[in-house]
Amino acid sequence: MPVTTIEWKNHKIRMIDQTRLPTEEIYFDIDDIEVLAEAIRSLRVRGAPAIGIAGAFGILITVHGYKGSDPLELLKQIKETGDYLNSTRPTAVNLSWAILKMRKRAETLKTGSLEAMRQGLTEEALAIWQEDRDCCRALGRHGAELLRDGSTVLTHCNTGALATADYGTALGVVFAAHEAGKRIHVYADETRPLLQGARLNTWELLNEGIDVTLICDNTAAFVMQQNKIDCVILGADRIARNGDTANKIGTYNVAVIAEKHNVPFYVAAPYSTIDFNLANGSQIPIEERAASEVTDGFGRKTAAEGTNVYNPAFDITPNKLITAIITEHGVIKPPFEVNLAKNKTDV
Amino acid sequence: MPVTTIEWKNHKIRMIDQTRLPTEEIYFDIDDIEVLAEAIRSLRVRGAPAIGIAGAFGILITVHGYKGSDPLELLKQIKETGDYLNSTRPTAVNLSWAILKMRKRAETLKTGSLEAMRQGLTEEALAIWQEDRDCCRALGRHGAELLRDGSTVLTHCNTGALATADYGTALGVVFAAHEAGKRIHVYADETRPLLQGARLNTWELLNEGIDVTLICDNTAAFVMQQNKIDCVILGADRIARNGDTANKIGTYNVAVIAEKHNVPFYVAAPYSTIDFNLANGSQIPIEERAASEVTDGFGRKTAAEGTNVYNPAFDITPNKLITAIITEHGVIKPPFEVNLAKNKTDV
Repeated sequence: MPVTTIEWKNHKIRMIDQTRLPTEEIYFDIDDIEVLAEAIRSLRVRGAPAIGIAGAFGILITVHGYKGSDPLELLKQIKETGDYLNSTRPTAVNLSWAILKMRKRAETLKTGSLEAMRQGLTEEALAIWQEDRDCCRALGRHGAELLRDGSTVLTHCNTGALATADYGTALGVVFAAHEAGKRIHVYADETRPLLQGARLNTWELLNEGIDVTLICDNTAAFVMQQNKIDCVILGADRIARNGDTANKIGTYNVAVIAEKHNVPFYVAAPYSTIDFNLANGSQIPIEERAASEVTDGFGRKTAAEGTNVYNPAFDITPNKLITAIITEHGVIKPPFEVNLAKNKTDV
Repeated sequence: MPVTTIEWKNHKIRMIDQTRLPTEEIYFDIDDIEVLAEAIRSLRVRGAPAIGIAGAFGILITVHGYKGSDPLELLKQIKETGDYLNSTRPTAVNLSWAILKMRKRAETLKTGSLEAMRQGLTEEALAIWQEDRDCCRALGRHGAELLRDGSTVLTHCNTGALATADYGTALGVVFAAHEAGKRIHVYADETRPLLQGARLNTWELLNEGIDVTLICDNTAAFVMQQNKIDCVILGADRIARNGDTANKIGTYNVAVIAEKHNVPFYVAAPYSTIDFNLANGSQIPIEERAASEVTDGFGRKTAAEGTNVYNPAFDITPNKLITAIITEHGVIKPPFEVNLAKNKTDV
């Protein structure tokens, strides 16, 4: 049973601290927006769907912490909380998507009682959480059709239960295939600089009894050259309406080497990751993170003093390198501009 | 002035401990073969040309430590030392090349006096060291012709002074261009798992006043996508006679992404790196190193207990992905089988 990454419990957010894995499994409660913002920025909670849920639950912290009696004043505070949380991580669209959903619901409730607003927004946030759980399982079942007994899958970054409420996107596909009785072998890119593949994927896969081999990111091409990879499945932080995909830095590299070796390249993501406002990937903002993630990552200084570092957290993979996008509505093939739009719904 | 990595001083090997860089610059002396073997295995000295020199100097330790009076007995000990040192690292051919050179010289001296043998072998080892110094400078000058003022070069692993006696192969090209007054900007792949690019290249380049930007290995493709790289220059641990090249793991990945972005891909190596006995790269043995390099590299456990790891130290880049090979005899273009052979000399 994959881990529950984030949930709403006793009017607080309960989450696992992902920075402590794999050596320590520690859960903690949050009822303060500043603490939540720090948890998102420092990647205690990370993964596009999971930070979307964290954003919705963040609004609930404001809602349940409100001591006044004026729904309109609370609505104003909700907007402020939303703007603040949106600023923590710019690339993943799920965060702003979930916050927008909460705001829109709040708008519809502003003329009623405070209690009704509190009740309605709690339902909305829990629905976002439940929708993620259902989405990932549906997505996993669709994606599992692409795998046979004995398939070998390359992953990049963590896209498991830890990136969502409790199941996963790309790893959800692996979990679903495993549950269907197929033996799957995963090659996990370690995913520098923060090693989500090494720290999180190995922990999740071994917990489920699924074979995993850890490799450095630079080794995947050599493994493909040896014909050891049947397909790549990885996640997304934002997908433009033409299919161009922002995901963890190194994803574009994997797409290029997969193309070279004729290995199918699948993106697995719920529809909430698709930003239909953007025509293509060039419009997706790319977060750059601190140099120290690269130079001081493991408790030891590993570059000369004064070294300049380029540390983008994400890159953009053009749609033409993507074989298909696995969603809760099925496996979407090119042309993505046309085929993604077929299942579009408004927030 | 680039660092002197390894030299023969007071009947001992003096070398810088590369595992302590960039935070500590520590030199130490070796007069014991076991200590030398440990230094090679643990990468206190690394880089194909540098471990070739270490092998030649290792023979000198045996020669100068010999307390008997029989040249034939010493010859036997030299062979044993050579076999033992050859076993420390299987991929780089320079180690066995230098040891073979020392053995052949010893053979020619076995009928003379012990003193003549000692003298002759000392001269031979010092010639190997000096030849590396001259080679790297010649190679650097040839390669520098490929760079213009303002060129941006991507490197992978360390191929500077620290990989040779005191100047470098791929970084030697950068040093030579810099000395010729060209402003060069280097993007340095950090080079997992042991971070030679991060620890060693940044230290060498900043010491020389050359601009360097450190990136994770998985970021190079995204940097190329942004048209920021004019060419790739990296080293080699062994080159088959058709040009197929074994080099640090991740080199093949760089070759594939360079091809995708039409970025010239240069290998810089002295002729001693070419193994004319091998028809192609499939015959080059690939060293696999400990899982702990990937999972416990810098003082913190970064993968789940029991994780299976694939950690090859090298990969093979097929000749068709290589634009040219920069050597002390000039810049060699395809067809490599024909053009490399033109400057072939026997050991």
